Amino acid sequence: MRLAARPTGDVKPEDWEHVSVPVDAPGPGQFAGRTRVISLDPAMRGWLDDRPSYLPPVGLGEVMRAGSVIEVTASNHPGFQPGDHVVGTFGVQEHVVSDGKGALKIDTSLAPPSTYLGALGMSGMTAYFGLLDVGALKEGETVVVSGAAGAVGTTVGQIAKVKGCRVIGIAGGPEKCAVLTDELGFDAAIDYRAGDVKRALREQTPDGIDVYFDNVGGDILDAALTRLAMHARVVICGAISQYNNATPVKGPSNYMSLLVRRARMEGFVVFDYAKRYAQAAQEIAGWIGEGRLKVKEHVVKGTVDDFPETLHMLFRGQNVGKLVLELA
Amino acid sequence: MRLAARPTGDVKPEDWEHVSVPVDAPGPGQFAGRTRVISLDPAMRGWLDDRPSYLPPVGLGEVMRAGSVIEVTASNHPGFQPGDHVVGTFGVQEHVVSDGKGALKIDTSLAPPSTYLGALGMSGMTAYFGLLDVGALKEGETVVVSGAAGAVGTTVGQIAKVKGCRVIGIAGGPEKCAVLTDELGFDAAIDYRAGDVKRALREQTPDGIDVYFDNVGGDILDAALTRLAMHARVVICGAISQYNNATPVKGPSNYMSLLVRRARMEGFVVFDYAKRYAQAAQEIAGWIGEGRLKVKEHVVKGTVDDFPETLHMLFRGQNVGKLVLELA
Repeated sequence: MRLAARPTGDVKPEDWEHVSVPVDAPGPGQFAGRTRVISLDPAMRGWLDDRPSYLPPVGLGEVMRAGSVIEVTASNHPGFQPGDHVVGTFGVQEHVVSDGKGALKIDTSLAPPSTYLGALGMSGMTAYFGLLDVGALKEGETVVVSGAAGAVGTTVGQIAKVKGCRVIGIAGGPEKCAVLTDELGFDAAIDYRAGDVKRALREQTPDGIDVYFDNVGGDILDAALTRLAMHARVVICGAISQYNNATPVKGPSNYMSLLVRRARMEGFVVFDYAKRYAQAAQEIAGWIGEGRLKVKEHVVKGTVDDFPETLHMLFRGQNVGKLVLELA
Repeated sequence: MRLAARPTGDVKPEDWEHVSVPVDAPGPGQFAGRTRVISLDPAMRGWLDDRPSYLPPVGLGEVMRAGSVIEVTASNHPGFQPGDHVVGTFGVQEHVVSDGKGALKIDTSLAPPSTYLGALGMSGMTAYFGLLDVGALKEGETVVVSGAAGAVGTTVGQIAKVKGCRVIGIAGGPEKCAVLTDELGFDAAIDYRAGDVKRALREQTPDGIDVYFDNVGGDILDAALTRLAMHARVVICGAISQYNNATPVKGPSNYMSLLVRRARMEGFVVFDYAKRYAQAAQEIAGWIGEGRLKVKEHVVKGTVDDFPETLHMLFRGQNVGKLVLELA
């Protein structure tokens, strides 16, 4: 699936082009594989825009960037054998040829391939380092996470519970909120579609928010800023409410609460923590094994042709947990 | 000078009321004094609004809160004798009675009273702790300060020069810019009234901004956010461009650069550093003595009746350096 045009606002079907090309055999030092499952991430929207960011934009005519798990079918690479499952940034395509750079062999007997994109993959790493390193979370603190029913949000909230914190999730709709409180152990959930988020936060955070983990931006970020505790940390992970804007991003008008509350707002990019992924994944796997962290995944089965529509689901908030596209 | 009404937008003359009352003699453990010089600070605008902040708002009918230097005229307090000069938050009034709480005797043979409100007072402390503690400035970094010709800005820029940094000031008008570069040693100055601040910043900060010290908010904060270096620190000290807004504050729409640049934005209140004031003042006094930090003061001579008009000067940007009202 290639990017055919730079989208303005919502991504349209004609911004994509599905091209069939002959499958290359792996060259010297390369391996080839068949894609099993593709990761869908809010950050993808940003990669489509031609402006400076933490990664170069996907070029016009290039295969869409995506994390995925492939199964090796042929190999001239000593580290990968046919039958191996490998996770990497292989793009939205059925067949992959790789030199193994950034690729990691996974053990599908421990967890299904999709989990290596979710809780044990980028989403889990984002939650872990954002909350614990950037957010500098301490036991007993109050954590609020927006986009709480998403891949990162479900993991942030559950890690915060493991760390002995009070956790409030903000999500859209009563079903998602029920998953957070009834299934994932959040202390409370706020349905932002149901009404006044500011008032709900006031009720749910009597002592203020110590760590606010923001995946959405916009009005919800502004509401959270009214509730900061002294020396609070606002972790800027994403701003999904603003990604499809054709108009300028809404800046947080309540940012002066950072001064009143001696608080900080800090952004991060998970790739900076690559050297510590293995340790974090091991810790998360341990919590999963102990039943303290439940993996939530939303699996769409289809072909790469279903990628554009599946991506839309993220921005419409139609997924609970990690959204992946599983190829037949 | 008492607050008679809560201003909306610009403070109007009828928001103030000058009341004459009999001068009290000092009671047991108190001293009385005559006000010599009153500090004018942008933060005063915030104290007039009835909303939660780092200090309670000035009450209707209360004497306006202000830092000032008084000369003691009578004393029943063992720590203060007639003739002593004392700095404290004594308010906008000609005669003061105090129990000495928060009051500090000063040596007017070392520096004039006004300097104990400026470079050696709150303005200097704000610059020092904001830049060095919150901004975590390191030698050789690039510093940009807005409101650069103000009391805090002139001090921030000069401390950054002492610390071996490249310093760019943003100020309004060519005269102020000339003071910054020709008199105070800034490496460059950007006149925000002259045109495109974003472009000027791009030219003046080829390697990006390591510390942005913000006194103004609004569009200038947004422009600075487009130029952050990796791991930059944005110090939120004030937002003078927004204080007289009757409409909501303009939030920084470019705040997502905090993510791209792995940067942080942090607010602070100088009072938190009270235990370290003496050490900071001593260091600043040393720099003044060595000629490395020039004290800029804008002295208006008048009576307390001139306070409202003098306060306006701040918001119109009519002062260079520390603005004070000196009573005859």
